[in-house]
Amino acid sequence: EVFGMDGFPLFLHYGMFVPVLQGQADDNLAEQFLPRAMNLEIIGTYAQTEMGHGTNLKELETTATYEKQAEEFILHSPTRSSTKWWPGNLGKMSNYAIVTAQLHIDGKNHGPHNFLVQLRSEIDHIPLPGITVGDIGPKMSLNGVDNGYLALDGVRIPRERMLMKHAKVAPDGTYTPPFYAKLSYGGMVHVRAHMIHQQAKLMSSAVTIATRYSAVRRQGRIEKDHPEVQVLDYQTQQYRIFPQIARAYAFLFAGLEVMEMYENMTKGLKKGEIDLLPDLHALSSGLKSVISFDAAIGIEQCRMACGGHGYSEASGLPKLYGVVIAGCTYEGENMVMLQQTARYLVKSMKKASRGEPLSFSVEFLGRKTEGRSRIGMMEGYTDNEIAILLLSLEHITRTLLLDASIEWKKRVKMGESKDRAWNGVTVEMNRAARVYTRLFIAHSFHRRIISSPSSIRSVLTDLLSLYLHYECVDMSHHLLYDGHCTGDQINYLKRRLYDDLTKIRPNAVSLVDSFDLTDRQLNSVLGRRDGNVYEALYEWAKNSELNYTDVIPAFQHIKAMMEENRAKI
Amino acid sequence: EVFGMDGFPLFLHYGMFVPVLQGQADDNLAEQFLPRAMNLEIIGTYAQTEMGHGTNLKELETTATYEKQAEEFILHSPTRSSTKWWPGNLGKMSNYAIVTAQLHIDGKNHGPHNFLVQLRSEIDHIPLPGITVGDIGPKMSLNGVDNGYLALDGVRIPRERMLMKHAKVAPDGTYTPPFYAKLSYGGMVHVRAHMIHQQAKLMSSAVTIATRYSAVRRQGRIEKDHPEVQVLDYQTQQYRIFPQIARAYAFLFAGLEVMEMYENMTKGLKKGEIDLLPDLHALSSGLKSVISFDAAIGIEQCRMACGGHGYSEASGLPKLYGVVIAGCTYEGENMVMLQQTARYLVKSMKKASRGEPLSFSVEFLGRKTEGRSRIGMMEGYTDNEIAILLLSLEHITRTLLLDASIEWKKRVKMGESKDRAWNGVTVEMNRAARVYTRLFIAHSFHRRIISSPSSIRSVLTDLLSLYLHYECVDMSHHLLYDGHCTGDQINYLKRRLYDDLTKIRPNAVSLVDSFDLTDRQLNSVLGRRDGNVYEALYEWAKNSELNYTDVIPAFQHIKAMMEENRAKI
Repeated sequence: EVFGMDGFPLFLHYGMFVPVLQGQADDNLAEQFLPRAMNLEIIGTYAQTEMGHGTNLKELETTATYEKQAEEFILHSPTRSSTKWWPGNLGKMSNYAIVTAQLHIDGKNHGPHNFLVQLRSEIDHIPLPGITVGDIGPKMSLNGVDNGYLALDGVRIPRERMLMKHAKVAPDGTYTPPFYAKLSYGGMVHVRAHMIHQQAKLMSSAVTIATRYSAVRRQGRIEKDHPEVQVLDYQTQQYRIFPQIARAYAFLFAGLEVMEMYENMTKGLKKGEIDLLPDLHALSSGLKSVISFDAAIGIEQCRMACGGHGYSEASGLPKLYGVVIAGCTYEGENMVMLQQTARYLVKSMKKASRGEPLSFSVEFLGRKTEGRSRIGMMEGYTDNEIAILLLSLEHITRTLLLDASIEWKKRVKMGESKDRAWNGVTVEMNRAARVYTRLFIAHSFHRRIISSPSSIRSVLTDLLSLYLHYECVDMSHHLLYDGHCTGDQINYLKRRLYDDLTKIRPNAVSLVDSFDLTDRQLNSVLGRRDGNVYEALYEWAKNSELNYTDVIPAFQHIKAMMEENRAKI
Repeated sequence: EVFGMDGFPLFLHYGMFVPVLQGQADDNLAEQFLPRAMNLEIIGTYAQTEMGHGTNLKELETTATYEKQAEEFILHSPTRSSTKWWPGNLGKMSNYAIVTAQLHIDGKNHGPHNFLVQLRSEIDHIPLPGITVGDIGPKMSLNGVDNGYLALDGVRIPRERMLMKHAKVAPDGTYTPPFYAKLSYGGMVHVRAHMIHQQAKLMSSAVTIATRYSAVRRQGRIEKDHPEVQVLDYQTQQYRIFPQIARAYAFLFAGLEVMEMYENMTKGLKKGEIDLLPDLHALSSGLKSVISFDAAIGIEQCRMACGGHGYSEASGLPKLYGVVIAGCTYEGENMVMLQQTARYLVKSMKKASRGEPLSFSVEFLGRKTEGRSRIGMMEGYTDNEIAILLLSLEHITRTLLLDASIEWKKRVKMGESKDRAWNGVTVEMNRAARVYTRLFIAHSFHRRIISSPSSIRSVLTDLLSLYLHYECVDMSHHLLYDGHCTGDQINYLKRRLYDDLTKIRPNAVSLVDSFDLTDRQLNSVLGRRDGNVYEALYEWAKNSELNYTDVIPAFQHIKAMMEENRAKI
């Protein structure tokens, strides 16, 4: 658990180096290196991102030029901006790396491919000739990982060190492209599914800490002559924390479902079924973006809900934020990811208009939009209400997509190129992609409830109700915009939302206890299971490095200054 | 500038100790200690917050019990939670502190008052008997400040060390309360006005960095056969950054205006005019909350707009976020601050309904609400449109306040006590307080434009237009909710917003250059004026502590592990 938060020397070795070798090396290379990697005789990482290019892989500048005579590739970094930048454990720890480079054969660029490159001597760990490698310096968080840089100056490797399970280069330089180019999406889906689940878990740590502490902390009075209340009784505090509990559950469920979908897809792939892949790719891009941001902001709300003590590292919360917010950037920058999702939605909508069948997650795009929502018209019957809210989210997604598409066409008609015009509607398209993602999260929450034991179905339904009311109030401008809902219906949603908070209150601590995180995992003075917060905070503080001596050594300078000033009189 | 970001040993001495001595000590005490403090013969801080109580000062547990015989106060921390916690420079640097404690005389509690307490020897800096003092450990940011703890065990100080400019204790124990209790608000207003301005300045650093870097960074193509574009050309990037430029200007203007209002008020106070104080107090509470949060989130958007490099400390952005987000918690927790503002608004609305005159910032509460907005009905005439948008913000504030008040009364009618019922509407009341604050910010931006030289009026008007369209789209559910706007009008606002982005684009770099921040102030590799980002990033990284040696000492353990594993075969 500690390693998971701060990183460690084998983070990328296990996370990327070994899996990529397994997935992309041909039998020959795998035989040679996989046992050594698995046996930790070497440590590797995965070097793709460059200083000048991250998300746009097509434009990576590092080259791997094939030289027939020698049957070797020459790896080279032609510019400063082509320096590999950010790969974890690249700086000081790894002696091997899988390096992504543009494959050049006979003057032709075949695009980015992966190559196994030795970086440092296996004997004394000194960088090999032509290799410039180092650490990129301190970061917002994750400082236990030596994220590194790497420049290659005409480094030669044997032909066999290209990862050739899919694409191949024959000794004579003949290039064979991979059978199905989009297969590489599979790996991305897997990484993202895992990432969503990991972020949801970190979010569940934060809500556990904030909820428990808010039940311990007493400050202020709600009624004048009563004692100070647990801060968890304030509506504003509940509004900060409870929707985050609901989201933590929702994100965990969505993560689990995507992992299951991925397993099913992999089985299908083996039988040659690839239709699920684009759907899952779009979905995982959307989920990656929405969850990394909402989880991070949710963690930050939990932190601020703990007041001053939340700002102390003792709370464990600042680090959680630093780790989770990074997810908005790595594995594909969020804005770019949302656009991929949006493009898939637009494509699917076109399919629908042609009457073609639609994939699982976008089926609703083929359904007719209903005019007025029935929100608030059958109060009390929760199951039905959840269905109505889900229909409204479907309605919003369709409307946003349609409106943005109309605007897109309008811009094209006015003379902009299709691509230029697309840039003018990306903000709205991203909004559509976000609602589509929230809709999926809500659906997967709902499916999870249906399949859960009846004993917990009621409290989970309360949580889903809170999740939906919260998201719908948050997106109420979309509900109001075309008369799908009236202002009275929004007021109804708000009333329901505030009722949900009251309903969750008595179960709040149990709901976070159910994440079943140990004190060691939480690593938080505020989130301790025994609630003995103030004593623990004092003990924690006493161990501050500055307290090793009563008077810190640096004080001598201040002392000299004060003495001098006193003497001046 | 460096000190301003990280803190330093005299941070609280100059920021709080000296000003509070000046403002609250009587002549006798001031004479004795002010010259010594100004001359840096002693270093002091201000110890108010306790482990168990922050915002709710009334409940502080530290006691100062007057003992007539000795003419001394006995300062005491009766519980663990009464330990002073968080005061800056308290841990290791200060030898004096102004300590806030409940004043007890003859068994009667007169509430929190301030006392000057010596903490450490002036000779060897060792803590004096009865004083337990230390550092509270690492924090999310601001680790250049030794935030500390302090427990007092029956520490005796002479009667004269109470700060007695306002309240007084005579030798015989006779207590004289301050003449006008709310006068202490004045100090808070001053601190908050200063804080708003400081946060706006830090936000302007972040937008400078992100805008300049986005003009340097090229990645991806908007049109297929064109070169890679500056990322600043993407609509999603503009949408992330430009509204933050507008907000940085808006917040700077609002900060300046509040400081001016404070100066005017102080002049008025001297003539006994205190009517402006409650208005300014409510306003500064709202501004403190809205600006600390929006500035921090804006900085974080700027950081993420810089992709991976934004996550590196090289960008200077992580630290800016860490410093600014702290402002949501210190100087009064934001949710509590917003409630103070909301209560003032409710009071003012009642006044209005009785036909009584209203203060400056709430005058609009007395005006009639207009039914349908005229947004989009007189396209092209910007000045008029700004007026229309301001009217809409007024409308939203009134509506939110009124609706929340009705709900409040409804809850009272249903049997809840007034106080309990208030807790049930605090989330909605806080929404009203936020809109009221945004309205003031927009108004002060508008006033600033009117008084600005004509040469810059046009570009500032574009910025205000962006600010208003952005905020109105963000709050469009409030505009739609009661039919004040139609969906078509919201679409019109969105179109205008996207047009504003295009209009700002050619001026974006100049707009941030106008903040006139030096490279030294920005302390950011990405924000350099010369745009030579990649070379500078490389130079910065080479200086990483981990690069002092090619092979870091800790590697010996990994080496041993690998060798052992190789031998095992």
